[in-house]
Amino acid sequence: MNSSYIRYILAKMMQIEGALLLVPALVGLLYQEYHISFCYVIVAIISEACGLIFGIKEVKNHTLYMKDGCIATGACWIVLSFFGALPFVVTKEIPNFFDAMFESVSGFTTTGSTILTDVEAMSHATLFWRSFTHWIGGMGILVFILAIIPLSGGSTLNLMRAESTGASVGKLMPKIKSSAAVLYLIYAGLTILEFILLLFAKMPVFDSINIAMATAGTGGFGVLNDSIASYSFAAKWIVAIFMYMFGVNFYLYYYLLFRKFRKAFHMEEVQIYFGIIIFAIVAITWNIIGMYGSFFEALTDSVFQVATIISSTGFATADFDLWPQQARLLLMMLTFVGSCAGSTGGGMKVSRIALLVKTIKKELLTYIHPKSIKKIQMEGKPVEHEVQRSVNVYFVTYAVIFVVSALLLSFHGDDQETILTSVTACMNNTGPGLSKVGPTCNFSFYSWWAKCILMFDMLAGRLELFPLLILFHPTVWRDLFDRKSEERKLRKKNN
Amino acid sequence: MNSSYIRYILAKMMQIEGALLLVPALVGLLYQEYHISFCYVIVAIISEACGLIFGIKEVKNHTLYMKDGCIATGACWIVLSFFGALPFVVTKEIPNFFDAMFESVSGFTTTGSTILTDVEAMSHATLFWRSFTHWIGGMGILVFILAIIPLSGGSTLNLMRAESTGASVGKLMPKIKSSAAVLYLIYAGLTILEFILLLFAKMPVFDSINIAMATAGTGGFGVLNDSIASYSFAAKWIVAIFMYMFGVNFYLYYYLLFRKFRKAFHMEEVQIYFGIIIFAIVAITWNIIGMYGSFFEALTDSVFQVATIISSTGFATADFDLWPQQARLLLMMLTFVGSCAGSTGGGMKVSRIALLVKTIKKELLTYIHPKSIKKIQMEGKPVEHEVQRSVNVYFVTYAVIFVVSALLLSFHGDDQETILTSVTACMNNTGPGLSKVGPTCNFSFYSWWAKCILMFDMLAGRLELFPLLILFHPTVWRDLFDRKSEERKLRKKNN
Repeated sequence: MNSSYIRYILAKMMQIEGALLLVPALVGLLYQEYHISFCYVIVAIISEACGLIFGIKEVKNHTLYMKDGCIATGACWIVLSFFGALPFVVTKEIPNFFDAMFESVSGFTTTGSTILTDVEAMSHATLFWRSFTHWIGGMGILVFILAIIPLSGGSTLNLMRAESTGASVGKLMPKIKSSAAVLYLIYAGLTILEFILLLFAKMPVFDSINIAMATAGTGGFGVLNDSIASYSFAAKWIVAIFMYMFGVNFYLYYYLLFRKFRKAFHMEEVQIYFGIIIFAIVAITWNIIGMYGSFFEALTDSVFQVATIISSTGFATADFDLWPQQARLLLMMLTFVGSCAGSTGGGMKVSRIALLVKTIKKELLTYIHPKSIKKIQMEGKPVEHEVQRSVNVYFVTYAVIFVVSALLLSFHGDDQETILTSVTACMNNTGPGLSKVGPTCNFSFYSWWAKCILMFDMLAGRLELFPLLILFHPTVWRDLFDRKSEERKLRKKNN
Repeated sequence: MNSSYIRYILAKMMQIEGALLLVPALVGLLYQEYHISFCYVIVAIISEACGLIFGIKEVKNHTLYMKDGCIATGACWIVLSFFGALPFVVTKEIPNFFDAMFESVSGFTTTGSTILTDVEAMSHATLFWRSFTHWIGGMGILVFILAIIPLSGGSTLNLMRAESTGASVGKLMPKIKSSAAVLYLIYAGLTILEFILLLFAKMPVFDSINIAMATAGTGGFGVLNDSIASYSFAAKWIVAIFMYMFGVNFYLYYYLLFRKFRKAFHMEEVQIYFGIIIFAIVAITWNIIGMYGSFFEALTDSVFQVATIISSTGFATADFDLWPQQARLLLMMLTFVGSCAGSTGGGMKVSRIALLVKTIKKELLTYIHPKSIKKIQMEGKPVEHEVQRSVNVYFVTYAVIFVVSALLLSFHGDDQETILTSVTACMNNTGPGLSKVGPTCNFSFYSWWAKCILMFDMLAGRLELFPLLILFHPTVWRDLFDRKSEERKLRKKNN
């Protein structure tokens, strides 16, 4: 394990986070929240200082294996969430550390589950920081680092692989730095576009910025207690459309940007994604139309809820906990499907689900033609055996984590629907569940250990399981301590 | 597709079922239910006649590929259930055909979900037939055919493979006929042993026979309205122990019978099976002890409920729907685990779950040592890649069928717990679910189409998905019709 390089990446991350923490401080100044602003500056300095101290030692070995990439990513996200939680505690807006940590993890993983009962009581700086964590977490902090800092040597692709969503991450450009930068530029461009459109839809400036960032990261933190139910009709449609857009594989925008239209319009995953969306909208509209006055109202709520669930954003306009059983169950299932690989959305990803369905079809075919050696096709290319296997294993691991989390959470003593949808909402980074964690409720009633389980689920969901699981593998810790004891021995010898 | 041989197997099956239908007729005579008895004889004659008509044409080609084995098995089980349902309709004890079919499918698949509200109102013959379907379905009708009829030529192992439970079926003896016969002898021996012990525990003779058969098949139909709650303490413990025993891989008994003790005591799956059982009993006893007067009472109910769920039998002594959340959730999960491969129990099977967990462990290891080529071990032997893949695919397919069934069932408009546990109970062949289908309730409130979905789930669960799914594959139907049209063309030419 290249722990010195991992330490170096962690240090860089803390420095960046220190800088990022100054943005909400600035927002606080603008709104004359001087005390709050000061708190943010303090935390920024702490983060910066930690980064400088940890980064002081030079790194000699620049090789970064898959394992190191995973460990670095897992560790980074935990530390990132820790420093992200500090301002909540220091400003005393969320005095309990576990609550603050939950909010921070929920922010960075773009889950959007909150423990706050009254969002409107928060300061502008803190509201901004919550949305900003969504924006940072959406595309990934490491991708951000890769985009702006030239990390010398090493296959830094492993870092990007571990942090990006979906089955496989390639390089868009020959250089990783350029790939990461292009992704972030598209991301920022779309966010700004949404912000401007929201202004046109008569949303206040502060709200527009926040909602745009929360949509971009497919997070779901709002700045009003009723999420976004009270905004104008136009604003809701804009948000809905952008939620769909941020759930799309970003390669699509890359292709469009570089005028590779043929490639853009033949992306199988995107086609399936929109196929599912259209099916869900039609089914749900048809299902809920009896509850609404007009077809258009039903359609609006249906379009919005499907968007918020499939993109794993989690904004709420309607309390879908009151909808009929079919609509609720369909939404539950969409939660698991999630959005496209290479988007900012959560869930298992459309490409994985498509691959799984194709695997079943192929299995049936091997019963019928045992000697057929046809490979599964995806995006017009045969799928490598290795990818297929890893998708299967991902699915199995996902199920096991889900079951174990639900079992542990059951000790909290809530009803089954609350337990199962809490885990579902967290693992898929969606946000709201049903029953006690429904769209109009929040996660504050859980005790600290239950929150820890859900935090684990959120991180596992965002990092696609293995980069987080690997941190708990005994060999990793053995490596760490072995190295330390070896160093100590070496020092003793030298003395 | 060798449809003439498949037809031949179906014909044999109908003949056997005709003979088996005479047993309840005899029971009816004993209890002086002459009218009912007559009905059973009528149905027996119909079944026999159909068997003779279909079997009249000789079979030339005796090759039976995997595909043919699957199709034969799937078709056999549907026809078997159809003729098994007829007596219920003809005796007018279950006049509605869909209800009768549901009861029959539930019987043969050893699920034990019932649509009856008053079991005690049934005639003795019908009660016996219900339990008898469990007994036949437990070990499998095709295995029965293989055991008593010398099916000439062909790899009839494919038939046994398609019908037996678990990941892999080998031959115990060099000849399939002997293997099947040994399995049935062990099965019958254990059933008789339980019957005798139950008599000693002061259970009435008729009840003892029925309960013994329902336990052996891990079915769950009782003869009293309160399932087996009103029997003596000793009887309950005997039933519990036999439920555990019928959930064990039958190879264990084979090894014990032939004094291969070393092999018997080193069966990994059996060890894991009992490990899970002990864990579950301890956890549940600890969880429910507050609700009971004494430790022993809590232990008894816990031992019994774990047995009934993990073996997928579904007898009820306590209404576990009233138990605390953890106990209920744990029981839910045990439903999915199920019993050992090669037993009469349902669920996904312990060996599959063990393999899935090992797969995850290995995946984590490949992140740490990417070049490691260590194979997963099971039962002391490395697991072939093909087996591992098929277990993964099984799991994925299982999940997809589960989700689709739940979604379709949601159109019935019941609460989520009812929907999810209905599908769970049927797919794992357990019997009772929670909420509206809890241990004290039944499935009669579902409408015909919902019952059809659940019947499909029961058959899919019992036949381990693919032998049933394959019946719905278009190529199978195309084959069938192509062959028919070809024959017609040939006949036209000859004329």
